[in-house]
Amino acid sequence: MAAELMDGVAVARAVREDVARGVADLVARGVTPGLAVVLVGEDPASTVYVRNKGKACEEAGMRSVTIRMPATTSQGELLAQVDALNADPAIHGILVQMPLPPQCSADEVIRRIDPAKDVDGFHPVNAGRLLIGDPDGFAPCTPAGVMELLRRYDVPTKGAEVVVIGRSNIVGKPMGALMIQPGVDATVTTCHSRTRDLAGHARRADILVAAIGRARFVTADMVKPGATVIDVGINRVEEPRSKTGYVLAGDVDFAAVREVAGRITPVPGGVGPLTIAMLLKNTLRAASRVAP
Amino acid sequence: MAAELMDGVAVARAVREDVARGVADLVARGVTPGLAVVLVGEDPASTVYVRNKGKACEEAGMRSVTIRMPATTSQGELLAQVDALNADPAIHGILVQMPLPPQCSADEVIRRIDPAKDVDGFHPVNAGRLLIGDPDGFAPCTPAGVMELLRRYDVPTKGAEVVVIGRSNIVGKPMGALMIQPGVDATVTTCHSRTRDLAGHARRADILVAAIGRARFVTADMVKPGATVIDVGINRVEEPRSKTGYVLAGDVDFAAVREVAGRITPVPGGVGPLTIAMLLKNTLRAASRVAP
Repeated sequence: MAAELMDGVAVARAVREDVARGVADLVARGVTPGLAVVLVGEDPASTVYVRNKGKACEEAGMRSVTIRMPATTSQGELLAQVDALNADPAIHGILVQMPLPPQCSADEVIRRIDPAKDVDGFHPVNAGRLLIGDPDGFAPCTPAGVMELLRRYDVPTKGAEVVVIGRSNIVGKPMGALMIQPGVDATVTTCHSRTRDLAGHARRADILVAAIGRARFVTADMVKPGATVIDVGINRVEEPRSKTGYVLAGDVDFAAVREVAGRITPVPGGVGPLTIAMLLKNTLRAASRVAP
Repeated sequence: MAAELMDGVAVARAVREDVARGVADLVARGVTPGLAVVLVGEDPASTVYVRNKGKACEEAGMRSVTIRMPATTSQGELLAQVDALNADPAIHGILVQMPLPPQCSADEVIRRIDPAKDVDGFHPVNAGRLLIGDPDGFAPCTPAGVMELLRRYDVPTKGAEVVVIGRSNIVGKPMGALMIQPGVDATVTTCHSRTRDLAGHARRADILVAAIGRARFVTADMVKPGATVIDVGINRVEEPRSKTGYVLAGDVDFAAVREVAGRITPVPGGVGPLTIAMLLKNTLRAASRVAP
């Protein structure tokens, strides 16, 4: 029997509707949530992401400010821009689109963002709040989106075996940290390139989160029948029959795994749309805190 | 065959000797590392801990300042004391001994400590640096002590199965975060009270870290033959035949598990002594950063 599809587009729409209601409440109280997105250079993928984020903001009734800086921007100029946004009372969320050109240090830029406006959840203090379970922090949008998907599909997490494949700072590590908190109560194993029996771990999972950035890495034999499979990957795979010359594939071999899993997220249309929705949710929360 | 005993007293001594050499170097450059310990109230166990920390500091050639405040100290008074220590250039490390009396908020006090002087590693920004693998942070002393023990006994961690029992903010969570970092490269499973098959997980472990605060919780049948067993627990168990009416027991059933394990830490004399040694090491590092 084929797995239930977890419809990230529909869940993202529901989240964005909730956010829009929250925004309307805030606007009625005189505060319009504002998100500033800083784009340095003209990376085509980044340009698309930034445009989508801006559009989603406006659809939710928020103010969106996009700041485009040339690819030659110095670290000092970028930090000065961050400082200006930190000081701007009309801006509640700040996002610096990655990757940055080589003369800029992403780490230093991220640390410069006011943690109270760090709606990407990348500042160390927000990473720390996540780890220690302090609800004042902002969780990074992708793992937060996975949690939202699990909640909306009533996937039980208490005592569940969760296996996270990947240990990046923006997905794998915060994903594991979210899952072990009291209230979520999953038993979490974090696997990575050095893991010895990765397939064996994956097969234990009630909830398997793939975030390794390798197309179709998770095969059907790595999935326990009935498991919930969350695919965070989005990889370009050469495909001569496609007009563009490539197709998008997740970290999961979707066609085969859907025959084994109980629930599965497609790529695209799974976790992806949730990422922007959670960004809006974080921005609303940042604005709510300063509202009268 | 009985397990090799991991001698925390000897390893702690070696760490403290290294620290003493580093302190001597700093003193020669005109900086004497200083640790301030704040003790609120007169909890007998806390009083002993604080005295031991002060003594260890002095033995390593550091300055030790112990600030005793009455049990009636208000939150405002405690925060003002922290502010004064943050501003004091002769103080490089600040530790507020827990637990605090009920009128004080530990969370707020911890967040008030300058992260650069947070040698206990409890500030959210240091927890975050730990999670994201930023070496600028301070790791909490107990999990840092476990890492030191593993290093000094050449216990391989790359690809090792590590199972951490317990998810406290001062041991379990940072322990797991340290173990998954690149370079350490363990595959980590964090278990807790809601874990379904805790014994099954424990039996998979090449390195089993017990930090649940339940006396003799880890029994021999939960340990893989040859595994390295690290006992972080220190529990009082009633024992009428003892003069004090109790004995100290770890989270591991030492007598039985030592017959199965490859290496094991005793309690006392295992992880415990490392905790103070790592506190000294963190304080030396904090002082080194501000030295000319």
